[in-house]
Amino acid sequence: MADWQIIDGGLTAPKGFQAAGITAGLKPSGAPDLALVVSDVDAIAAGVFTTSQVRAACVDYCQARLEDKTAARAILCNAGQANACTGQQGWEDAIATANAAAKALGIDANQVLLASTGVIGQRIRLDRLLAGIPNLVAKLSADGSDAAAQAIVTTDLVTKSFALETQIDGRPVRVGGIAKGSGMIHPNMATMLAFITCDAAVSSHLWQEMVGRAANQSFNQITVDGDTSTNDALIALANGESRTPAITAAGPQADKLEAMLTAVCVHLAKCIARDGEGATCLLEVTVTGAPSDAAARKIARTVAGSSLVKSAIFGRDPNWGRIAGAAGRAGIPFDQNNLRIQLGDILLMEQGQPQPFDRLVAHDYLKQQSALSSQAMAAQIFSSTEQGNDLIADTAGSLISRQEAALEALAHPVQIAIAVGAGTGQGVAWGCDLSYDYVKINAEYTT
Amino acid sequence: MADWQIIDGGLTAPKGFQAAGITAGLKPSGAPDLALVVSDVDAIAAGVFTTSQVRAACVDYCQARLEDKTAARAILCNAGQANACTGQQGWEDAIATANAAAKALGIDANQVLLASTGVIGQRIRLDRLLAGIPNLVAKLSADGSDAAAQAIVTTDLVTKSFALETQIDGRPVRVGGIAKGSGMIHPNMATMLAFITCDAAVSSHLWQEMVGRAANQSFNQITVDGDTSTNDALIALANGESRTPAITAAGPQADKLEAMLTAVCVHLAKCIARDGEGATCLLEVTVTGAPSDAAARKIARTVAGSSLVKSAIFGRDPNWGRIAGAAGRAGIPFDQNNLRIQLGDILLMEQGQPQPFDRLVAHDYLKQQSALSSQAMAAQIFSSTEQGNDLIADTAGSLISRQEAALEALAHPVQIAIAVGAGTGQGVAWGCDLSYDYVKINAEYTT
Repeated sequence: MADWQIIDGGLTAPKGFQAAGITAGLKPSGAPDLALVVSDVDAIAAGVFTTSQVRAACVDYCQARLEDKTAARAILCNAGQANACTGQQGWEDAIATANAAAKALGIDANQVLLASTGVIGQRIRLDRLLAGIPNLVAKLSADGSDAAAQAIVTTDLVTKSFALETQIDGRPVRVGGIAKGSGMIHPNMATMLAFITCDAAVSSHLWQEMVGRAANQSFNQITVDGDTSTNDALIALANGESRTPAITAAGPQADKLEAMLTAVCVHLAKCIARDGEGATCLLEVTVTGAPSDAAARKIARTVAGSSLVKSAIFGRDPNWGRIAGAAGRAGIPFDQNNLRIQLGDILLMEQGQPQPFDRLVAHDYLKQQSALSSQAMAAQIFSSTEQGNDLIADTAGSLISRQEAALEALAHPVQIAIAVGAGTGQGVAWGCDLSYDYVKINAEYTT
Repeated sequence: MADWQIIDGGLTAPKGFQAAGITAGLKPSGAPDLALVVSDVDAIAAGVFTTSQVRAACVDYCQARLEDKTAARAILCNAGQANACTGQQGWEDAIATANAAAKALGIDANQVLLASTGVIGQRIRLDRLLAGIPNLVAKLSADGSDAAAQAIVTTDLVTKSFALETQIDGRPVRVGGIAKGSGMIHPNMATMLAFITCDAAVSSHLWQEMVGRAANQSFNQITVDGDTSTNDALIALANGESRTPAITAAGPQADKLEAMLTAVCVHLAKCIARDGEGATCLLEVTVTGAPSDAAARKIARTVAGSSLVKSAIFGRDPNWGRIAGAAGRAGIPFDQNNLRIQLGDILLMEQGQPQPFDRLVAHDYLKQQSALSSQAMAAQIFSSTEQGNDLIADTAGSLISRQEAALEALAHPVQIAIAVGAGTGQGVAWGCDLSYDYVKINAEYTT
């Protein structure tokens, strides 16, 4: 049982963090494109980065930095240009941005971590970014999470933000975060950008372990299109400003903190999957009975990432054959005569055999989950635009808060439950359906 | 240098083979749905089958049969019902069909191999299949390849057939084949149905090795949507009716036969990729400079299978960033500073850096390759329908043969050439673009 509560404030909900987001002129659209999060004091820093051989300069920079020193004060993130495949010049640009942020903040350059997102092969518009730094620093505030969340998005429809609070030794401890990502989302590392803040006091070794495990159960379990980005990064800062006793070893308090950290990561990961390019619903695949948790997670990812399954979900088609097919090719041995598949409450397959079910009821389940989730997404988009939006003006969008809408959008996943045997391994993965709009968005992105 | 020539006749081009295809009433559409190929004498049989944990009864049947006995006389294939996830009853149905075919042919049941394709979870309409067997056997002929090729397709737009002839010891030796498949196509085994005939005399051990290696360079190198089927099978029969000396060990003659076998498999594999659901072009990804051929093939497959790359190709967008991104996540280590990417003749990236290129020229290259290939596909469809087709009546379709059109459709691939370093490993993979129609076809398939 989770003994924490949802709180407002996102990235700046934990004590001792400020954030800001501004328009520096990096995106052609003129939307906000430069974000900064700063801890008042040195924070323990941990990161999980893309496993791709083709990495952005900021990823190499952060990895080198974190190997060298596990504390940091700030994360600077630009959207618009990925600074990937930009060679030595990209590396120098990265250093220049870190130096500029450090100077404006009055800290050492090696206390600044970096992230970028946008078009691969494009250098950051350095002059604009550098010119924007003073304004960005001036805007830093303890209410700045939303502005930062807005400044890191690209093709995202909605911003992603979340925070939880629990008690440790009778004092509040918080974990907050923001994330972005809607295409090029696939397991194999952090698979998008996510920045996590925490005001617990925790040892750096333990924090890195917690962050790694949390990533494996959240960001590494979402898939939109099977593509891993050059820039994927999860960076998590823990600054100790909750003034709770330092957590330096495994135990109930470490478990409590890790569980809350994982819950924040899972929420943000699900937000990303739900906002998958062209998606009309959130897909949640649960696998049980596998030889190990890792095996279960792999089967779940494979099903959630299957183009055939995703197309069927978009077509509101309870096509259990494709689910069985995807589970079978995940590379995890199991006896097909033990396979059990359930869609929502509807049993589709048992002991490897299709079961009679009401196809119309299953179709309606798929339709309804998508409709409820889409309505909440529309409300979220509505509540985040000042002008509103004609397309969703007739929904109840304005009656609920953005936070409520965000939770509501995740509250109606299409649930596929798969059992593969008598093992104890279990795992969950999240994805979305594959729609015409995915193709449209990705056929027309750069040119 | 290939010292063989393209010949007519497909599956029945090699000596001593007959084939037939009929409508048994298995497909709701009323299209042909039952195929048979028979060797006049015992043939050495080799197979490569799906690696999925969820396998159709026919796959289990063939694997068991081939472990037991490496000779066979016939392959019976039905389309319409996959006979996968049909449990014990499906297994019994498979045996019943083998028995019926054997009886009508006057051979032993264990000389019959089986294949099925169609909707997963559906039993074969056994009464109709059994009722069709006498007619099917009566139709067997040395001209029956096209009829068989027609009877095994499902969502395919065109049939796939090919044959080559070479000389061994001054006598002609032939390899022919037919294939089907257009969705659920992805490396990891044979990934579709393909039946190969050969009139060389070859030892069973050598033949199985040759077929396995040929599959790895052809059918295992194509990807349409990343999904592996429950029914994928490549079955190859060699009956010795060329009366050439038996090939029983490695050497120039074995090499010659294997090269020709591989060429037939590659041709059929490319036909499948080109006919990928919703595809408008054939994508050919060549990788060089990798640590090994297997590593190169893996990178090539990953790029050819990337949804982002495929969407970009459909959008006629020379998005080298996505190509680099996909190459980077293939799981093969390389130094990104050695990465070189070429699209057709256009250099997009060198030493990991984007190169200046004329975006319009690149766009036109993509558009032109697709247009030329699509025109040939249309001609092929036109020439295979008696009534013609309004949509393509104004092309030059009727002026070329179906074989010429099939070759022409493959003659204009979108070529992506990637070099990753100084290694000697090289490999090729084939795929297609990702279009709105892929989603449409797969969102609406069963319900």
